[in-house]
Amino acid sequence: MREVTVLGAGLHKYGVFPDKHYAAIATEACHRAFENSGVTWKDVDALYCGSVNLLPGCGHVVAMSLGTNGAAVTNVENASASGSSAFREAYMAIGSGLHDVVLALGVDKLRTAKSSPTEGKPEESSANAKPQWQFVPAQLFAQITRDHMAKYGTTIDQVAKVSVKSHRNASFNPYAHFQQPVTLEEVHQARMVAEPLTVLHCCPWDEGAAAVVLCAAEVAPRFTEKPCPKVIASVCKGTLGGDPLMDLTHVSALEAYEQAGVGPQDLDVVELHDAFTIEEIVYSEALGLCPWGEGGRFVDSGETEIDGRIPINTDGGLISMGHPLGPTGLGQIAELLWQLRGEAGKRQVKEPKMGLAHMVGAGGVCFIHILSL
Amino acid sequence: MREVTVLGAGLHKYGVFPDKHYAAIATEACHRAFENSGVTWKDVDALYCGSVNLLPGCGHVVAMSLGTNGAAVTNVENASASGSSAFREAYMAIGSGLHDVVLALGVDKLRTAKSSPTEGKPEESSANAKPQWQFVPAQLFAQITRDHMAKYGTTIDQVAKVSVKSHRNASFNPYAHFQQPVTLEEVHQARMVAEPLTVLHCCPWDEGAAAVVLCAAEVAPRFTEKPCPKVIASVCKGTLGGDPLMDLTHVSALEAYEQAGVGPQDLDVVELHDAFTIEEIVYSEALGLCPWGEGGRFVDSGETEIDGRIPINTDGGLISMGHPLGPTGLGQIAELLWQLRGEAGKRQVKEPKMGLAHMVGAGGVCFIHILSL
Repeated sequence: MREVTVLGAGLHKYGVFPDKHYAAIATEACHRAFENSGVTWKDVDALYCGSVNLLPGCGHVVAMSLGTNGAAVTNVENASASGSSAFREAYMAIGSGLHDVVLALGVDKLRTAKSSPTEGKPEESSANAKPQWQFVPAQLFAQITRDHMAKYGTTIDQVAKVSVKSHRNASFNPYAHFQQPVTLEEVHQARMVAEPLTVLHCCPWDEGAAAVVLCAAEVAPRFTEKPCPKVIASVCKGTLGGDPLMDLTHVSALEAYEQAGVGPQDLDVVELHDAFTIEEIVYSEALGLCPWGEGGRFVDSGETEIDGRIPINTDGGLISMGHPLGPTGLGQIAELLWQLRGEAGKRQVKEPKMGLAHMVGAGGVCFIHILSL
Repeated sequence: MREVTVLGAGLHKYGVFPDKHYAAIATEACHRAFENSGVTWKDVDALYCGSVNLLPGCGHVVAMSLGTNGAAVTNVENASASGSSAFREAYMAIGSGLHDVVLALGVDKLRTAKSSPTEGKPEESSANAKPQWQFVPAQLFAQITRDHMAKYGTTIDQVAKVSVKSHRNASFNPYAHFQQPVTLEEVHQARMVAEPLTVLHCCPWDEGAAAVVLCAAEVAPRFTEKPCPKVIASVCKGTLGGDPLMDLTHVSALEAYEQAGVGPQDLDVVELHDAFTIEEIVYSEALGLCPWGEGGRFVDSGETEIDGRIPINTDGGLISMGHPLGPTGLGQIAELLWQLRGEAGKRQVKEPKMGLAHMVGAGGVCFIHILSL
């Protein structure tokens, strides 16, 4: 297939915005992506809109808000990975030769309008946020945490450090829901959700939007002089038996590395699915970033910090940047793009050349994308 | 892009099935598609599931019902054209080289369970069916009908003959919702929905499923010795100003003909979107099957009958086969496949070589696919 590059990205801040229509949230992200990429809506051949709560119809509403241009419009849904799914469809649409410039959009609103406990009140700590993950998912990941601690000697301090790191990273990210650092003590002392996971181990459910413009590598120079990373692997796998998350991640990662002809040692920056802190630990292992069972000590080592060997979730991850479902996977791609291009501001990793994005979705689906300059 | 062929298709009857879970409806269609194509679920690399009312999540539920196989699963939504959208994503996934064998599925259930007025009661005429199209869409198409009659001298007899033809065709289709012919008099005398359209000018809202297996042309011989039509055009356009349906259809058709290097005169069989009878007339014109304004006389001429020059909606169309949303666009592809392959039973067109499928969706989207042996 022909080469596909990422041309630009734009975000709407993650949070809860009860008084803002989703079309306004989405078009704000789109216009930022146009500005970042050098394209206009008229240049866009197709729009893929990933969402969970706004179907049916959201992509068409957003497209109409952007104006008439004849673009193909398709809505895609893949639970938490809906944005990753929109990105992959855009990639294939260009790779197949049918389209040259495609906009991948993720947008979501909560099903019922809720005011955020922190939105507009910067004096409140994110420790007061009330994520929705209080039932089945939290229980599942609490069990995985207890198992990992028992089997590998992982400590709760190590797990909690994922939250400390992600909050610190998010404090450098103007689009993040939570932009205040937290201490290890604050993580431990926050409201208990499912033993041993306090609320600061859990991501919030958010609203927001993320837009990414992709194009055929051959047309990129028409729009920008900036370096544009190429998509060198795109994998989606689902419906595997066994462990629906770790196994699926491992199998998907192996396929992605083979597709790209690279290995985990070649990665300079990683975005991975951390709806719960323990996920960063187990997916670090499943992605081959550290040996099996070593995920806890890997966090402790500092290697996953912005100035470490392999920075993880430099944007704050789902835990601190937020998890608006539809946008999340595209927010990861935006972060990789900006890191690879040197546009990541205060959270910039030193000259990264290759990045990986990983998302899983309920129902048992995993996406891996690898971008390389 | 590499050549993509349609390998097989399977349907679940259209109708209303309040006591049947959608996974049962969907897997029935899938297993028929596997049988028709020679593949098994294990051969399938990816599943695209088109639906309007079963999102989020339906594709994953169906995939799990089929068994574990690691296939990529993606849900797509595009209003009435959701099935066409699933087909096009499958086409691009193969065309891009990422996947070899892809299952495009459409499945839908009504949002609220309703028992069908005819389901299980073959003695009742479809004239007693109560479609949902009683408000905005019916008013819109009633206006388009009145305008067409005033501007071009189209008669209500000509418009009603679309319904007579589609019911006759559906009487030869075991998967159709309505399988009883109706007379011109019955169409005229049926309950008035929006002057001059009676209920027999309107499609029902249905439940059902349609599954189509596509593959790279080079791997088709592994699975079947039957002739497999190639996809020679795939167009999706949206967000155009002006008339959202006729203009969009015309622009999309021109693009499809150019992509395929053919013209309307090369077509042997056509499936088009006829949620209302007048749509067959105006889209016949927009697709270039007859001159502008001649759509009514075109129906009268008999040229669109199964034994005519260019048979339209041989399966009964949306009016008589039914319109379950998610499956509809894929049901059209199934019909084209079976027609091109000589598997259309009593409604078989004489040795067709090329067919076109046309769908529009609310929100302003149009799909055109052209298949050729």
